[in-house]
Amino acid sequence: MSLPSRIEVREEGPREGFQFEQGEIPTERKLALIQALARTGLKRIQTVSFVDPRRVPGMADAELVCQGLPVAEGVAFGALWLNAKGFLRALVAPNLTIDGSVSVSASEVFGKRNQNRDREQDLAAAAGLMALYAEHRVPFARATIMAAFGCNFQGEVPVSAVLDRIEAILALAGGAGLQRPVVSLADTMAWATPRRIASVVGAVRDKWPDLELSLHLHDTRGLAMVNAWEGMRLGVTRFDAAIAGLGGCPFAKHAGAAGNLCTEDLALLCAESGVETGLDLEALIEAGRLAEAVVGHPLPGRVKQGGPLRH
Amino acid sequence: MSLPSRIEVREEGPREGFQFEQGEIPTERKLALIQALARTGLKRIQTVSFVDPRRVPGMADAELVCQGLPVAEGVAFGALWLNAKGFLRALVAPNLTIDGSVSVSASEVFGKRNQNRDREQDLAAAAGLMALYAEHRVPFARATIMAAFGCNFQGEVPVSAVLDRIEAILALAGGAGLQRPVVSLADTMAWATPRRIASVVGAVRDKWPDLELSLHLHDTRGLAMVNAWEGMRLGVTRFDAAIAGLGGCPFAKHAGAAGNLCTEDLALLCAESGVETGLDLEALIEAGRLAEAVVGHPLPGRVKQGGPLRH
Repeated sequence: MSLPSRIEVREEGPREGFQFEQGEIPTERKLALIQALARTGLKRIQTVSFVDPRRVPGMADAELVCQGLPVAEGVAFGALWLNAKGFLRALVAPNLTIDGSVSVSASEVFGKRNQNRDREQDLAAAAGLMALYAEHRVPFARATIMAAFGCNFQGEVPVSAVLDRIEAILALAGGAGLQRPVVSLADTMAWATPRRIASVVGAVRDKWPDLELSLHLHDTRGLAMVNAWEGMRLGVTRFDAAIAGLGGCPFAKHAGAAGNLCTEDLALLCAESGVETGLDLEALIEAGRLAEAVVGHPLPGRVKQGGPLRH
Repeated sequence: MSLPSRIEVREEGPREGFQFEQGEIPTERKLALIQALARTGLKRIQTVSFVDPRRVPGMADAELVCQGLPVAEGVAFGALWLNAKGFLRALVAPNLTIDGSVSVSASEVFGKRNQNRDREQDLAAAAGLMALYAEHRVPFARATIMAAFGCNFQGEVPVSAVLDRIEAILALAGGAGLQRPVVSLADTMAWATPRRIASVVGAVRDKWPDLELSLHLHDTRGLAMVNAWEGMRLGVTRFDAAIAGLGGCPFAKHAGAAGNLCTEDLALLCAESGVETGLDLEALIEAGRLAEAVVGHPLPGRVKQGGPLRH
């Protein structure tokens, strides 16, 4: 069984979770969870989104969260934005590591529904952000390909569409004098299966053997972990995950039903499989339980209830 | 990616679920779920346990459930018992398919805690049941090896202990003139990982290449699906599963936290991977939602919320 010796887990829980949760969560409770996460060995924690607070009320306190971020050696706190306005807010927020990122959809149908943009508009928006990164000398770190494995509205998403978007982004990056980003293949609507992971990762690798890939997986259909496993078997070493499986999607009928690949469950699988993560499972379990207390309802991650394996 | 062309899913939801659930569930509600399951393409549905109603109050109505079982062509309704008394109750209950089964623990520590039996007592109890099966001309269909992948009390369970229990059971079966049973490797306390699945299944196959294997997986630590996947990759074609992920274990703090490998989530993975199950995913989703209504709280399966993939 061939697996990478080490993977890097990027924590998306606060960012994914708090924008999805119903009801207001006090800023200090968000910060308590972020502080707990900063003690687990995670090196990168996505904390907030700089988005329109009328559309995403849960992120109205993004600047306040940033002000309260702890000093934690070796831990970078990141943020998400989707346009220039959001980026400029992030740029002046304290305590953040500002890495440039763009998101484009491999499904044009989803792109239109999600952001009202077709392929050209999607790429133009990405180009606009890249120009800002070049101007502000911000590293271009990550390009996310949304709906990379399928789409609830379009159905199958051809691998050629994923390759097309990556090719366009790399060309734009080259034109703007920016470095090649890590490419995050996002299973936005939980269409991935191990077979689709193998097919998309394989096609991207065939075309760009040296491109750094990351997987962003949702558990809406219960397959996040098996998809992560297939990713590891294929040598992918970067994974997004969310503590306690925070996050979700509009198709979940209750907040406990869906969410992201669960950080502590992934950490247990890795620990038992000889894959280093640098993560402290006991500390993650504690953070997972805190996440549940903070949102005030059960969250889907299992190990926080099931406990670690005592050898 | 090598996978079996077809697997057989044995439904354990009613049997596993109703013995675990707190609070009384009316017999007719149990039957409503069983009726829904009988319309999903499942060929084998475990319905009740004939156990001491003082220990397992949720199974006090086992005979009543059997009386109400529907006529469903091609569907066998099964039951579990752990001793002669339970077997003799099952034998006179109506509408059941009576297949002989025994359970022994690969972990002696768990065996003592669970049934107060050491290895010899465990095997003697199994031998007693086998003698009854021979006497009543009941086929010896299944031997379950509990704690086959690890134990919360003992820790690691050596593969040699699993081989030892199988060898003893096969010798006892031969001595009693019974056929070789399917051997069910049960991850009773959710210690399995893909690596342990490969190691145990590999060792059993090396010793008995023609033995029919089945996997019984719990999702207490979020790894049931990835373990099932590894099992399929290794050519295992028999899996227990529970609708909506019913069931659980005493380590779960709330009923929604753990449970068995979820039938409908497994069915979706198989459908998307070219593995035939004969199952109707839409009908399973309906049954999964009904299971949730019957127990009165959220159950962990995902696809019943996330929905099928619309191609």
